[in-house]
Amino acid sequence: MRILGIDPGLTTTGYGVVERRGGALAVVGFGALRTSTQAPVATRLADLSAGVAKVLGEFCPDAVAAERVFFNSNVRTAMAVGQASGVALARAAEAGLEVFHYTPTEVKQSVVGFGAATKKQVGAMVASLLALSSAPTPADAADACALAICHINRSGLRRAIEGALA
Amino acid sequence: MRILGIDPGLTTTGYGVVERRGGALAVVGFGALRTSTQAPVATRLADLSAGVAKVLGEFCPDAVAAERVFFNSNVRTAMAVGQASGVALARAAEAGLEVFHYTPTEVKQSVVGFGAATKKQVGAMVASLLALSSAPTPADAADACALAICHINRSGLRRAIEGALA
Repeated sequence: MRILGIDPGLTTTGYGVVERRGGALAVVGFGALRTSTQAPVATRLADLSAGVAKVLGEFCPDAVAAERVFFNSNVRTAMAVGQASGVALARAAEAGLEVFHYTPTEVKQSVVGFGAATKKQVGAMVASLLALSSAPTPADAADACALAICHINRSGLRRAIEGALA
Repeated sequence: MRILGIDPGLTTTGYGVVERRGGALAVVGFGALRTSTQAPVATRLADLSAGVAKVLGEFCPDAVAAERVFFNSNVRTAMAVGQASGVALARAAEAGLEVFHYTPTEVKQSVVGFGAATKKQVGAMVASLLALSSAPTPADAADACALAICHINRSGLRRAIEGALA
């Protein structure tokens, strides 16, 4: 099971590809897609769309995990996040992949063990779970890895419950 | 000059294609792209993306006019509008088209003559300017036509000013 976690933003979109190998988690790749703040918004969204398609083609994930986005008070940022999220999700569906959504609290709960974990704690736990010497950078890539881990953990839990009930 | 106006939404995206023929405006086509509320969000966004690409291919506009989106209090709607907008703008840029953004007030000012015009007044004025017997439906298509008209009007004004200064 290979999962692409994605943390969309117009300027920086973090991604992280994680798979379960036997009982352990392993990172396949991570990074960030960036768009030029000098370019028109539509051009940046097209660039992001192409970048997401490239990541999907390179890593061939089985499914995608994305944040269930809620809006904060910053209207300008919120719009850009919504637009970037739309482009990324459309690309995933175009590739025939199912997208699973998790709230930030669900991700922290799953990765760190409690929903109020700090970004630093998430990064450290991601590094530990993926046997990396330090947290993936930029922070968006670490968040994306956390999303992928969250999905893998929850899928495992789901299977265990189904097995116990069978 | 043929302009595609687009009013993005996850459930209904209105579009209207308007061109200037001599001194008059003429409507080339209008309508709405709808996605199933039963489908997952990513699938709906991929469907919308395909629909926008089809409209671009069918009408071959010279440029795109879109609303400069601001968020209202409804967070759930805002997210969906942002995502739909992202997909539509990316498609326009992928087709090599420039996207021009106008606020709702700019559109009303340009089409009706005052920025506080009602939706009904905008619809009636769109019908009148495009020599239609009634306003385009759904309302999203009328709004999209208004965006296209706004861009054509403003481009004409821009050219006139440039000509006077030359």
